[in-house]
Amino acid sequence: MPHDHAAAQSGQLDACIQACTACHAICLQTIAHCLRQGGRHVEHAHMTLMMACADICRTSADTMLRGADVHVHTCAACAAICRACAESCAAMAEGDPAMQRCADACAECARHCEEMAA
Amino acid sequence: MPHDHAAAQSGQLDACIQACTACHAICLQTIAHCLRQGGRHVEHAHMTLMMACADICRTSADTMLRGADVHVHTCAACAAICRACAESCAAMAEGDPAMQRCADACAECARHCEEMAA
Amino acid sequence: MPHDHAAAQSGQLDACIQACTACHAICLQTIAHCLRQGGRHVEHAHMTLMMACADICRTSADTMLRGADVHVHTCAACAAICRACAESCAAMAEGDPAMQRCADACAECARHCEEMAA
Amino acid sequence: MPHDHAAAQSGQLDACIQACTACHAICLQTIAHCLRQGGRHVEHAHMTLMMACADICRTSADTMLRGADVHVHTCAACAAICRACAESCAAMAEGDPAMQRCADACAECARHCEEMAA
Repeated sequence: MPHDHAAAQSGQLDACIQACTACHAICLQTIAHCLRQGGRHVEHAHMTLMMACADICRTSADTMLRGADVHVHTCAACAAICRACAESCAAMAEGDPAMQRCADACAECARHCEEMAA
Repeated sequence: MPHDHAAAQSGQLDACIQACTACHAICLQTIAHCLRQGGRHVEHAHMTLMMACADICRTSADTMLRGADVHVHTCAACAAICRACAESCAAMAEGDPAMQRCADACAECARHCEEMAA
Repeated sequence: MPHDHAAAQSGQLDACIQACTACHAICLQTIAHCLRQGGRHVEHAHMTLMMACADICRTSADTMLRGADVHVHTCAACAAICRACAESCAAMAEGDPAMQRCADACAECARHCEEMAA
Repeated sequence: MPHDHAAAQSGQLDACIQACTACHAICLQTIAHCLRQGGRHVEHAHMTLMMACADICRTSADTMLRGADVHVHTCAACAAICRACAESCAAMAEGDPAMQRCADACAECARHCEEMAA
């Protein structure tokens, strides 16, 4: 049985679209959570990073959904921003499960996007 | 008189935001133009490239408008996609000023984003 | 046992977010399908309607994900545009399961958004 | 000389696209300003309203840029959300020119979108 390369690629693509879509939604929900928490959760650097993360996750997912080859570029940007956002969220995650959930979603999305960007 | 580095950077940022905003709008108008033209103007590869270009231009502009540091990553992706889109539009520009205008806007945006990504 | 009104509302909101998210993704995939089909599938009126549908579905979902009250307005616009898009896709659905799938996703999204807009 | 109805409509459309584009950008800049101010500027209701306003302004502008008829629906939603956002910003505008500028941009955008939605 020959190795089904195309199917493997398609499965990888679908998993990346799903990770980006989930990360986009969780970032938006976590931004709302941060606004309700206040304090360092609403610092400019953290909040604008989360907003950029939500935006690039959506752009990356949409580019893959359309089947455009240039998804390698949007995935590269998405991986880098998700890594930064995962770190920023993890730094606020002690005793705050919403921040941990966002850190996990960002890290998961970064992993998938790194594969697709290569 | 000392060189005003911060002001120069701010002027460069504003110019890049403006180039991304213009390129986003012109790509959307040119997609509509392509749909009215038909033929090779509506081929999958060309059209999905223009859609990706419109999206990353907006994401890049929005990230700079918020003052988020990670604009280096969105600008890098934007520069690469704008370069590809400029080429795709230029290949259809003979006798079609709308495609030339889009090629020019993409090339201009790529130049500004390359500076901001560095 | 009292009727749990808040939980019912939250379930309705989650279902609407999910319907908008699905419709956004399916519209983008179906736009790519239309570009591969050509002919009346790539007519300006149909294609720009599908693009508007993808955009307002995302805006509507994002507004609900943030918990913003003004989702009533984005859901009203989303319902109207999804109704129009469902009709446009259904008119091309004979022997084309991709168009039927998109018509169904739009109609489902319209139903959920009509409830949230009221 | 006959009244040039089409040209008048086109001028109105261009003015609305410009107002939506300006309002989108100013909302994003003002969100960053609010994050730097803190206090009631970063309350959940105000911030998520500004985010919804930025999103619907872009969706409304993009729908008009593509020449899609359904812009009447996105403009109706945009007008309603801009009115609410103008009010929310105006309530914080005393001694804060950035909030006044955003309130003005939202009110201007609402006026243009009301005309296009009719």
